[in-house]
Amino acid sequence: MESKQFWITEKFISIDDVVKNVVRPEAGAINTFIGTVREFTKGKRTLYLKYDAYVPMAEKKLAQIGDEIRGKWPEARCSIAHRIGELSISDIAVVIAVSTPHRADSYDASRYAIERIKEIVPIWKKEHWEDGEQWIGDQLESKAYPSGHPEQEDL
Amino acid sequence: MESKQFWITEKFISIDDVVKNVVRPEAGAINTFIGTVREFTKGKRTLYLKYDAYVPMAEKKLAQIGDEIRGKWPEARCSIAHRIGELSISDIAVVIAVSTPHRADSYDASRYAIERIKEIVPIWKKEHWEDGEQWIGDQLESKAYPSGHPEQEDL
Repeated sequence: MESKQFWITEKFISIDDVVKNVVRPEAGAINTFIGTVREFTKGKRTLYLKYDAYVPMAEKKLAQIGDEIRGKWPEARCSIAHRIGELSISDIAVVIAVSTPHRADSYDASRYAIERIKEIVPIWKKEHWEDGEQWIGDQLESKAYPSGHPEQEDL
Repeated sequence: MESKQFWITEKFISIDDVVKNVVRPEAGAINTFIGTVREFTKGKRTLYLKYDAYVPMAEKKLAQIGDEIRGKWPEARCSIAHRIGELSISDIAVVIAVSTPHRADSYDASRYAIERIKEIVPIWKKEHWEDGEQWIGDQLESKAYPSGHPEQEDL
């Protein structure tokens, strides 16, 4: 699975594995975004998270984001890996890497990717708080979710 | 040297070594910027680069950038490694990692770091073009440098 450009995995994601997919002679800049499990959200303590996904659709949507980026930044190359299963505090949940000839585009395209992941990729997370647990969409659609989660659209 | 938070090295820079310096429970976001050696710049071919630095001052200036970031984004943590010596096409020249609680700040602080590196860190590069060679400042001051380099302030 790790040889893919866009993948969902239950295993630890190596940043290098994602970055090596976008290294190329035309690129002078690589931006990566790494989403990690944060312990405290507005004073509320997370013990661990569980991510679940409809894997075939999630991988298809990640690849779609890559296509969208190529449409907007033709010289960009993108790779994305998202982990599912049980994650502990500071574990890596998602790694995005985008290479471009010049640095400004690498920042813009990387930011575009994380925002689109939250909009269109069918991945859900179950927050195991100190005082309970709750399924939360990892997407903007989750804003419609009746939820006590203090900041559900933010990693 | 690799246990430092801000360092200059002649060795290969592992992205993981820089990222692990900023991982912490309060962070949900890590942005990294990786500068690599680009082969073509406006049609002109680079064969390899040589970076040189006044190391004690360069490391001090990298640490200063970390302090500036803490001043602007108090919850951010930053680590930066810059390589010197001879680098081939696609080799990593610089790695910046910034962790923050939320993602927007990680992008902004990372971008601030690369712009400041180019402004204040005493590192110079010697471009070995297909048709010659030339010392080029890796800083904004290099704009005053009489140079045929087509895009000297950009990685």
